[in-house]
Amino acid sequence: MRMSQLFAPTLRETPAEAEVISHQMLLRAGFIRRSSAGVYHYLPLGHRVLQRIMAIVREEMNAAGGQELLMPIIQPAEIWLQSGRWHVYGEELFRLKDRHDRDFCLSPTHEESITDLVKSNVSSYRDLPLLLYHITNKYRDERRPRFGLMRGREFIMKDLYSFDRDEAGLHESYMKMYQAYMNIFRRCGLTFRPVEADPGAIGGTGGSHEFMVLAESGEAEIVYCDACEYAANTEKAECKPQTTTPALSPLPVEQVATPGQKTIEEVCNFLKVSPANTIKTMIFRADDELVMALIRGDREINEVKLKNLLDCLDLRLATEEECREVSPGGAGFLGPVGINKIAIYADAEVMAMTRAVAGANAPDAHLIHVCPGRDFTVKATADLRLIQVGEPCPQCGAPLKKARGIEVGQVFKLGTKYSKALGCTYLDEKGQENLMVMGCYGVGVSRTMASSIEQNHDANGIVWPMAIAPFQVIVVPVSNKDAAQMEAAEAIYRELNAKGIDALLDDRAERAGVKFKDADLIGIPVRITVGNKLASDGVVEVKLRRSGEQFTATREDVVGRVQALVQEQM
Amino acid sequence: MRMSQLFAPTLRETPAEAEVISHQMLLRAGFIRRSSAGVYHYLPLGHRVLQRIMAIVREEMNAAGGQELLMPIIQPAEIWLQSGRWHVYGEELFRLKDRHDRDFCLSPTHEESITDLVKSNVSSYRDLPLLLYHITNKYRDERRPRFGLMRGREFIMKDLYSFDRDEAGLHESYMKMYQAYMNIFRRCGLTFRPVEADPGAIGGTGGSHEFMVLAESGEAEIVYCDACEYAANTEKAECKPQTTTPALSPLPVEQVATPGQKTIEEVCNFLKVSPANTIKTMIFRADDELVMALIRGDREINEVKLKNLLDCLDLRLATEEECREVSPGGAGFLGPVGINKIAIYADAEVMAMTRAVAGANAPDAHLIHVCPGRDFTVKATADLRLIQVGEPCPQCGAPLKKARGIEVGQVFKLGTKYSKALGCTYLDEKGQENLMVMGCYGVGVSRTMASSIEQNHDANGIVWPMAIAPFQVIVVPVSNKDAAQMEAAEAIYRELNAKGIDALLDDRAERAGVKFKDADLIGIPVRITVGNKLASDGVVEVKLRRSGEQFTATREDVVGRVQALVQEQM
Repeated sequence: MRMSQLFAPTLRETPAEAEVISHQMLLRAGFIRRSSAGVYHYLPLGHRVLQRIMAIVREEMNAAGGQELLMPIIQPAEIWLQSGRWHVYGEELFRLKDRHDRDFCLSPTHEESITDLVKSNVSSYRDLPLLLYHITNKYRDERRPRFGLMRGREFIMKDLYSFDRDEAGLHESYMKMYQAYMNIFRRCGLTFRPVEADPGAIGGTGGSHEFMVLAESGEAEIVYCDACEYAANTEKAECKPQTTTPALSPLPVEQVATPGQKTIEEVCNFLKVSPANTIKTMIFRADDELVMALIRGDREINEVKLKNLLDCLDLRLATEEECREVSPGGAGFLGPVGINKIAIYADAEVMAMTRAVAGANAPDAHLIHVCPGRDFTVKATADLRLIQVGEPCPQCGAPLKKARGIEVGQVFKLGTKYSKALGCTYLDEKGQENLMVMGCYGVGVSRTMASSIEQNHDANGIVWPMAIAPFQVIVVPVSNKDAAQMEAAEAIYRELNAKGIDALLDDRAERAGVKFKDADLIGIPVRITVGNKLASDGVVEVKLRRSGEQFTATREDVVGRVQALVQEQM
Repeated sequence: MRMSQLFAPTLRETPAEAEVISHQMLLRAGFIRRSSAGVYHYLPLGHRVLQRIMAIVREEMNAAGGQELLMPIIQPAEIWLQSGRWHVYGEELFRLKDRHDRDFCLSPTHEESITDLVKSNVSSYRDLPLLLYHITNKYRDERRPRFGLMRGREFIMKDLYSFDRDEAGLHESYMKMYQAYMNIFRRCGLTFRPVEADPGAIGGTGGSHEFMVLAESGEAEIVYCDACEYAANTEKAECKPQTTTPALSPLPVEQVATPGQKTIEEVCNFLKVSPANTIKTMIFRADDELVMALIRGDREINEVKLKNLLDCLDLRLATEEECREVSPGGAGFLGPVGINKIAIYADAEVMAMTRAVAGANAPDAHLIHVCPGRDFTVKATADLRLIQVGEPCPQCGAPLKKARGIEVGQVFKLGTKYSKALGCTYLDEKGQENLMVMGCYGVGVSRTMASSIEQNHDANGIVWPMAIAPFQVIVVPVSNKDAAQMEAAEAIYRELNAKGIDALLDDRAERAGVKFKDADLIGIPVRITVGNKLASDGVVEVKLRRSGEQFTATREDVVGRVQALVQEQM
């Protein structure tokens, strides 16, 4: 490709709407343009990077036994009603009607679609395992699309679905995919970690890992252990109960006046107690039911854990009005003592307390010396809190660290959730009907492109890893008016392409400085500069974008040397 | 790929819903499955064919200077309102709203999108010409989706858009694309014809060609000339006025009673005149206006020509009620004499008549000896009829023939229709602002797959052209229990794949007859059968799907010979 013809409109200024580096760079370097909120055009450079990532994904999926197909983007409501997700997905699902007033959605994911397809076309154990995938647009009507390709409303994903006879088969498929994902993200040149994750709206209870690209701008928070392999999404990370002080002997409950003292901080200051000695009481609406959740005052609630415990579709904090139905004091004075209309769920740490402070369920009053178990009973005790940095690793006990990450892939054991809902069965050797056991495995293709930039950039622009760069090499003649330079640059460019190396020739009538700046901004890994030394010494200059390393090569050697360099890093 | 693992569910029976061969075969051979009306899953075999067609399309687009990008499927209403097509597209446009109640559509085509993109990112004559394309899903909410991939609601297209400085530049881009399309369809192994076409809803008046695959099942009708290169869509084909009898001297108009005689046939029988001596009168509603159209009684109206003449968005026959507003006799007794409330448009042949029969605009009455020009005046005379087989070729005069075709591609000169509507301009050398001159060029990728089957099949199944076959070669060991056969088959399969030939190994524990039937149904061009002669004579059998030709090859030679065969036909 010749730069004079390439449609890559660069911008001098960083666009104001772009908050994160990848969004800024993708716009500035002419890789993407916004079409509407959260919806982008991929310009030729961006498209090339996508194609490279997809090629790596395809190779790894095929090597792991996956077969590529292509499922529709518009999907009939029927199968989503069968799985129950037509209602679960809420406002995030783009819905539409056809001219006959039939309901459709734009697929955010394809569990329903593939299960329906396999159900109608596979019936024997002989056809299992079956690993099917496709690469296509996905849709999610985000309330607040942002960060460019990080959280868009239209994005590109690879999703593979596995169908197995049993849990053992599923585990095998899962581990194949886990390994394939390790290969994919390694080949894409990313620094990442697989972490234990919560399955979320996809469902399934058999296990899930997220592949997190470590980056400050990541929306996800993870905890990890330096001493062992443990890493988890904070939403998922298992918390062991920690006791801060030795258990004190119980005392009788007393009510004390706490006029206007509503927050944990206010109550602690007023009563001169530490937050670890208070019970944080919250009321949630779980589908149609109100429930009470208790955690220690120095902890944060983990709504994902609570939602999983309750097995509900929708969970939100109760309104002030809903709180008053249960507790006349309202949200600031909630407590578990005397509550019998609604179920109480307590974090394990709460149950270890003996002289706790809690709201009195009356205006401007709290109780002290509350002793869980003695003064109230709970429906269940569970791990309901968010983990904190420094807590001991649940595997080895070393203090946990925190990092931010961008989720670029996730693998799930779905089990029989969808095969049951849609009736996807097979006949075994004995002619007996069984549910297929499923897994699903996603790679955010467009998000991988953005994540790579979050990790690979400097002040001058993008620094693409070789394997996913839009072009591997750029050939820059210093002066367009120098016929010998132009001729040599053309020849080097042609020779590289003939060897299967994607090269770009900057044949524009621009100053060398402008060409260098653009090459750096676009992030091409290798630059070959054809300048004055060609005439004087018969050499050209090779510069590596990442390290800044430079060396000269003779006109005869340069193509071979650059080819070796490129192949080494692919 | 091993057949035992391939997800290609074949059907023994022809599915009842499939009317055309391609739809039947694609379902039976396991290439596609229906998701909802007009929306399909492409299974692995179907996906492979799509990928091959896309690869050919990409090569030809890139060779012609096209640059690939990717535009969104969900598009904001704003740009469609700017072009005026938000309303024009009517019920065929899938529309939806996001959570903030903003209007979007699923793109049926991308003129608006690309023009908006280029407008914001290209400003100089130096950046022109610019040829940008993408391959992506398109959406059209057909009233009656049918014929499988022929007329779907979700389908795959390649669309390229050209941006030039002027008409001369556009013509150059147009001819490049015309040639690229010739190459694409030739490489895909299709028998096709480029024909002059009407631009239709896309608009533009500068010219258009459709690429028609000749097939009985085609929805389009074309006329062509054997004596010269002329070929056109019948909707578009230019009609020269034909006179059947010498002009007679006019006579005074007379009204005659024609009780209950409403159709041309009834009136002709009743009055003993030939249809060529009657005027067929129709009233149409063109947007908000009623108009009258006249053609000779032995002709058919061409609504496309009428619509182009009127330059209206919407055209339909008037209702009986609307007819009576203009003519008290209603639809059976319409005629041009005495009409002055609405405009009359006449086909050129009508104006050559001197003693015509026409409705009297009164119940049960017709006029005879009507002389156009004398008895009524028209707003315009034009070519308004459909061409008929046997009429002289407008280029050379030889009698025209008819054929049916499937449109697989179309090229359009758009001119400045979209650049004007969306304000897409460039500055020339003098700093003056000009509108870009555009063209657009589409290939129906999924439709090309189906069209190929319409032309390439026999009673046993599909007969893929080599270049777009899902696999080029299938290796069939006759007996799975013969270790030597299985080993040789495996080795041949591996050697072919190592040479870059996509081979399929039928390793299933099925009878040879079943394997042969499936290989024929799926349509793999070359079959290598490893049978008893391997042990006795050291040879295997090669059979060509299309010709049925068979030959034996030694175990040592077979891979080389098949490779040569495949390369010859790619």
